[in-house]
Amino acid sequence: MHYPMKKHNFGAGPSILPATVFEEGSKAIKEFGSTGLSILEISHRSKAFEQVVEESKALAAELFGLSSDYEVLFLTGGASTQFFMVPMNLLGAEESAGYLDTGSWSSKAIAEARLFGSVEVLASSKSTNYSYIPRDFEVPAHLQYLHLTSNNTIFGTQYHWWPSTDVPLVADMSSDIFSRPVDVSRFGLIYAGAQKNIGPAGVTLVIARKDLISKAKRQLPTMLNYKTFADNNSLYNTPPVYAIYLSMLTMRWIKTLGGLQAMESMNRSKAGLFYAELDRNPLFKGVVGAVEDRSLMNATFNTVQPELEKRFLELCNEAGIIGIEGHRSAGGFRASMYNALPEESVRVLVETMRAFEKQFG
Amino acid sequence: MHYPMKKHNFGAGPSILPATVFEEGSKAIKEFGSTGLSILEISHRSKAFEQVVEESKALAAELFGLSSDYEVLFLTGGASTQFFMVPMNLLGAEESAGYLDTGSWSSKAIAEARLFGSVEVLASSKSTNYSYIPRDFEVPAHLQYLHLTSNNTIFGTQYHWWPSTDVPLVADMSSDIFSRPVDVSRFGLIYAGAQKNIGPAGVTLVIARKDLISKAKRQLPTMLNYKTFADNNSLYNTPPVYAIYLSMLTMRWIKTLGGLQAMESMNRSKAGLFYAELDRNPLFKGVVGAVEDRSLMNATFNTVQPELEKRFLELCNEAGIIGIEGHRSAGGFRASMYNALPEESVRVLVETMRAFEKQFG
Repeated sequence: MHYPMKKHNFGAGPSILPATVFEEGSKAIKEFGSTGLSILEISHRSKAFEQVVEESKALAAELFGLSSDYEVLFLTGGASTQFFMVPMNLLGAEESAGYLDTGSWSSKAIAEARLFGSVEVLASSKSTNYSYIPRDFEVPAHLQYLHLTSNNTIFGTQYHWWPSTDVPLVADMSSDIFSRPVDVSRFGLIYAGAQKNIGPAGVTLVIARKDLISKAKRQLPTMLNYKTFADNNSLYNTPPVYAIYLSMLTMRWIKTLGGLQAMESMNRSKAGLFYAELDRNPLFKGVVGAVEDRSLMNATFNTVQPELEKRFLELCNEAGIIGIEGHRSAGGFRASMYNALPEESVRVLVETMRAFEKQFG
Repeated sequence: MHYPMKKHNFGAGPSILPATVFEEGSKAIKEFGSTGLSILEISHRSKAFEQVVEESKALAAELFGLSSDYEVLFLTGGASTQFFMVPMNLLGAEESAGYLDTGSWSSKAIAEARLFGSVEVLASSKSTNYSYIPRDFEVPAHLQYLHLTSNNTIFGTQYHWWPSTDVPLVADMSSDIFSRPVDVSRFGLIYAGAQKNIGPAGVTLVIARKDLISKAKRQLPTMLNYKTFADNNSLYNTPPVYAIYLSMLTMRWIKTLGGLQAMESMNRSKAGLFYAELDRNPLFKGVVGAVEDRSLMNATFNTVQPELEKRFLELCNEAGIIGIEGHRSAGGFRASMYNALPEESVRVLVETMRAFEKQFG
């Protein structure tokens, strides 16, 4: 490891990546493989980089067990760009799409979709400040797709089931992709900004069913058509070379550790440790009302006594814990426990919660 | 320098960056400043990164001597995304924009603009395979803007003057931005993919007059409206953190060396060396017909005897010269001499051309 574990990075994203990714990523800036060049100065049309794209696509496909019905694409612009690219490509002006509203990101996706067609919000947990994942809704068969946000980074909820419907699911998986196995055959399209479990900020992964992306519903600028990326191996224009390379390194790390099954057990173990302490410790309370909807990625919580919030933050700072503040729109605390966060960091957080209890309990 | 000058990288982009950028960029992956973290894992909302964005904006403004009428924005998606964002934002469906067609990138920009309004191609050098920059055209006053490609990477031509008109100029400066001083007050908007003179692939610089970007001509998705980036300091959503950081380092390097005036003299000196040899050496011929339109950034040339092309490439390989092949659509040779290419590399190329003459002349 390149530096002693002096910081425990619970940041919500961009977030901690595996130590080997930092190590190899730093080296490739100086010299990439046997090219004699920095990875920053190689051509995106070079053999060396084409291999990076090929391996990245193959790794994403292998991790998810994708059938040949799916394309793996690398785009830019983050999930916020997918909020409009999905309806722009998949939703005709006279057609309807269903959306499930489970937080700020869902709401933004809904607002963008309304520019392109009819949007039916089938369920929303907004009235309880998004403290649960709604279960009580019907999915009309006429929908072009049903959009959901698999993990709600700000509010700390996560889908642990998928709606039962023949309508293709479309999911924003930005904050929990690669954290667990997913039966992708139930999805028409999955998208994710890389900056949590895939790699660094600067690249967006899109996994899409080929039949859906080959029939855009309107005339599109070249760079907004999924087909452009599918037809050109994500190399229509200069892609974010280094961000894709680091994503490849991160996926290699996931594969080496045992794939998504292994990620899920590690993540269950880490989240289990944290939530056990949260439920035990009388000085803290969770934010998510429905315990079964708690996120394994982002645990939101508060001190029971609001005036002690600062004190807990001080203890965290002393322990080297950073990025534990809640989202600026939510306040309180949030422990983001993505794939690359070591269990040791969670132990340090749990110890800090116990020290807090001793001091102020 | 991190490795001996074993390679002379004449690649057209992504291209060589200053050695200090590779050095500091590699270090920041391991530990960024005093954060105790890799730059890849810091929050884009952290003070440390906000300072990077602020300094990047300030450096771009200082290098270009921008007045407060202009905004500096960091986007993604490359120049290809600006091909449609410019007309989407600046051109109403019933309005006209003028375009100058000087190569493949201009043609692509024209095709995208046609989706949004009326396009008047005022001049084109297509009939001579883009071997010159057209001078003979009038600019109608009713145009919303006049678009040009300041440097044509594939064909090796460059504007060394700007059209005289009150219509706001819009320029794709992807391959010559920061290579020379520019009187930005004559431009409404300038855009550039970073991967030549600004930084690595993965970020796009947009410099725009505030009055133009505050009045989009149609209802736009949030991420396609320049105003979103202007209003949010380019931090509406997670930006390409590392690519912006490397751009800041590159702009610091430009400033340290003396700014755009210094870049221009270095580039004139390098291009002068090369073109003098090209014009002297009987075994080579230039591609650009109009000598006064030759690019200081990308010099296109051929061996007079096509059957000797391979031989020259072999000599280049032996000398450590890479990336010298012409664009896959153009063939022949292309020496890209961006800001960060050392003059020494040009000397090695010139020596190699002389060695070629000795051997085959």
